[in-house]
Amino acid sequence: MTAPLHEAHPAGPGRALPDTQQGMRRRNLARVLHAVRAEGPLSRAAVASRIGLTRAAVSTLVDELVRSGLIEELGPERPGRVGRPGSALAVSGRGPAGIGAEIGVDHLAVCAVDLRGTTRSRAIRQGANRGRSPGPVIAELTELIGRVVAEAEGEGLWPAGLAVAVPGLVARDARTVVRAPNLDWHDTDLGGLLPADLPLTVDNEANFGALAELWLEDGTPRDFLHVSAEIGIGAAVVVDGGLLRGTRGFAGELGHVPVRPDGPACACGGRGCLEQYAGEEAVLRAAGLEPDEDRVGLLAGRAAKGDEDVRRALRDAGTALGVALTGAVNLLDPQSVVLGGELSGLAPWLLPSLREELARRTAGPACPVSVSRLGPEGPLLGAAHSVVRAVLDDPAAVAARA
Amino acid sequence: MTAPLHEAHPAGPGRALPDTQQGMRRRNLARVLHAVRAEGPLSRAAVASRIGLTRAAVSTLVDELVRSGLIEELGPERPGRVGRPGSALAVSGRGPAGIGAEIGVDHLAVCAVDLRGTTRSRAIRQGANRGRSPGPVIAELTELIGRVVAEAEGEGLWPAGLAVAVPGLVARDARTVVRAPNLDWHDTDLGGLLPADLPLTVDNEANFGALAELWLEDGTPRDFLHVSAEIGIGAAVVVDGGLLRGTRGFAGELGHVPVRPDGPACACGGRGCLEQYAGEEAVLRAAGLEPDEDRVGLLAGRAAKGDEDVRRALRDAGTALGVALTGAVNLLDPQSVVLGGELSGLAPWLLPSLREELARRTAGPACPVSVSRLGPEGPLLGAAHSVVRAVLDDPAAVAARA
Repeated sequence: MTAPLHEAHPAGPGRALPDTQQGMRRRNLARVLHAVRAEGPLSRAAVASRIGLTRAAVSTLVDELVRSGLIEELGPERPGRVGRPGSALAVSGRGPAGIGAEIGVDHLAVCAVDLRGTTRSRAIRQGANRGRSPGPVIAELTELIGRVVAEAEGEGLWPAGLAVAVPGLVARDARTVVRAPNLDWHDTDLGGLLPADLPLTVDNEANFGALAELWLEDGTPRDFLHVSAEIGIGAAVVVDGGLLRGTRGFAGELGHVPVRPDGPACACGGRGCLEQYAGEEAVLRAAGLEPDEDRVGLLAGRAAKGDEDVRRALRDAGTALGVALTGAVNLLDPQSVVLGGELSGLAPWLLPSLREELARRTAGPACPVSVSRLGPEGPLLGAAHSVVRAVLDDPAAVAARA
Repeated sequence: MTAPLHEAHPAGPGRALPDTQQGMRRRNLARVLHAVRAEGPLSRAAVASRIGLTRAAVSTLVDELVRSGLIEELGPERPGRVGRPGSALAVSGRGPAGIGAEIGVDHLAVCAVDLRGTTRSRAIRQGANRGRSPGPVIAELTELIGRVVAEAEGEGLWPAGLAVAVPGLVARDARTVVRAPNLDWHDTDLGGLLPADLPLTVDNEANFGALAELWLEDGTPRDFLHVSAEIGIGAAVVVDGGLLRGTRGFAGELGHVPVRPDGPACACGGRGCLEQYAGEEAVLRAAGLEPDEDRVGLLAGRAAKGDEDVRRALRDAGTALGVALTGAVNLLDPQSVVLGGELSGLAPWLLPSLREELARRTAGPACPVSVSRLGPEGPLLGAAHSVVRAVLDDPAAVAARA
């Protein structure tokens, strides 16, 4: 194994760049871009004071970022300030865009996010993907990607990369879907099926959901467990602001943590896995309902109307989640647990029994459990923003391709 | 929270030292010392070629390490080599020593390890510590420490620091035992009770056991789960060669992972925790035996003689370990699981059912499970070697105190 398993999210931008003069220039480009993005509009002088470089050095760096289309000049700052008016700088709304895509069990979605973090274009296609072979699904996804890219290009943006969220295990090559049981895909190299002209990253949807939480929500701790679900239940383990990926890239398989070792058989070969109690189809079964495309909508609708069978099924699912999370919290000692993805839509009925179970199994104060405000949007946004973050962390790499 | 949760074991020595000229000198001292330790005896020229510095620079660094007593000159290298004979350098056997200590439920142990990694002095005291207040236990431990330090000093060594392994949860201050249920200690600041003249680090015994595995055994992967037990069952999570500590320092609480959610009540407030099935006292109970001081010896002895009740109890304990480890492996995706500490003595009777359970609950190849060759020695050795590693990684800090 050569890649580090723990990808620290750089505390400062571009931390991993080499320690040479060229590396220093690249790091400083990133520092300027991050400063402008976080606090802009800013004058060159303000950037220089923020990051502790000379005005002259910052000017050179800014010029390069402006030439590459990553920063734009908004014109002179409003008068009334001391000194010669400087031109206010802002991150460009017409530069590179991150293209995020999501392959769900029942939908495909694509979006484009600009450097400012604004979603500029979206496309979604409802329809079951389960049991379909990867080729036609990726062909449809590619068509959506084309549509979103065209719309973004119409607004002066250009795609800097593509990140795809999948409901399954992804190898550490960030291309190969090793196992997505609820699509019935195995060892599928998406790199060979997707457009070759964009840098590609494929990752598990729970991982992208966790990154979205980390990047887009205020107050997210740097150590948390992000639980996500469609039919399967996945988790992302975030340690010190980075994803814990595991030896093969398979860390976070919460859905196959045994909850009742003698429980019903699971497709994984085990028995009584969490998925058998808290996966969406398991909950539908427990509530006596037929499988449906809009599983969460059906369950949430009935629970809201007071359907006692559905409420009981969701209560039991919460209890099972509490048992599995007790184990996870004991092993990882995170600062919090966040319920994200589709699961967040059922939180009102899952949370009470989940929290109760976690509390009664914990010595001392129980680990806090919260619900993602990004909800089902998390994985798609996390994917698109992962491309944007890569640009912000090393703008020189992108400028070279612009 | 300010401290990083993931302590990367430096890939090169002294990685974390500041990036100044002074920092560079300290890093280079560490590189010289590591090179001599790993490949010595070496001449100055050989060290220079190993680490890519000039002979002159290495000579200056070596002189400083010789003056501080960390390196010794063995005299001229044997003739027959090309060029002027250089003096062969070796890590000193008379320099700083790491003092390791272990507070077990039924014993106290102390050892001194020199820079070469050789254990130079040991002391052990059998006797139950359960329910004794910390004061008298630490007084006895201090007496053992004094004896071991005196013996080491008699051989020309001097103590560079003290590391203490405890069977419980330790706060991130590395001094306070937050909870050691099987000693019945709570919020005990060992820093106030132990000799103040030595730099002190207190850590969980499973953590020190895992570090011993990582440092002393060939072929240990950089990502593994180290399971350790006395009456409680602890684990250490090693990710990319460093310990995953968790927010409060409590990561690795495998003993309280629920195995059967409706099982017997546990002191932690939960039910059916792993400790209720695979802890030493639980196994004695299941085998119909009375509690005993030498629990592992009693169980291993009877199992070896073919006692069917004991064998069945151990088989069931292995199954319970397999269920809990299935959850841990699903969450962490480690390269392997290592059984260490006292638990290793029971491995012949635990492993078959443990491996079977893990395999039948795993899609694809099951995570390999091995037994530590360090066994019950692991935590004590890990403690002493953690002091030695700190010296090797930053010899300048120690030289200043020599």
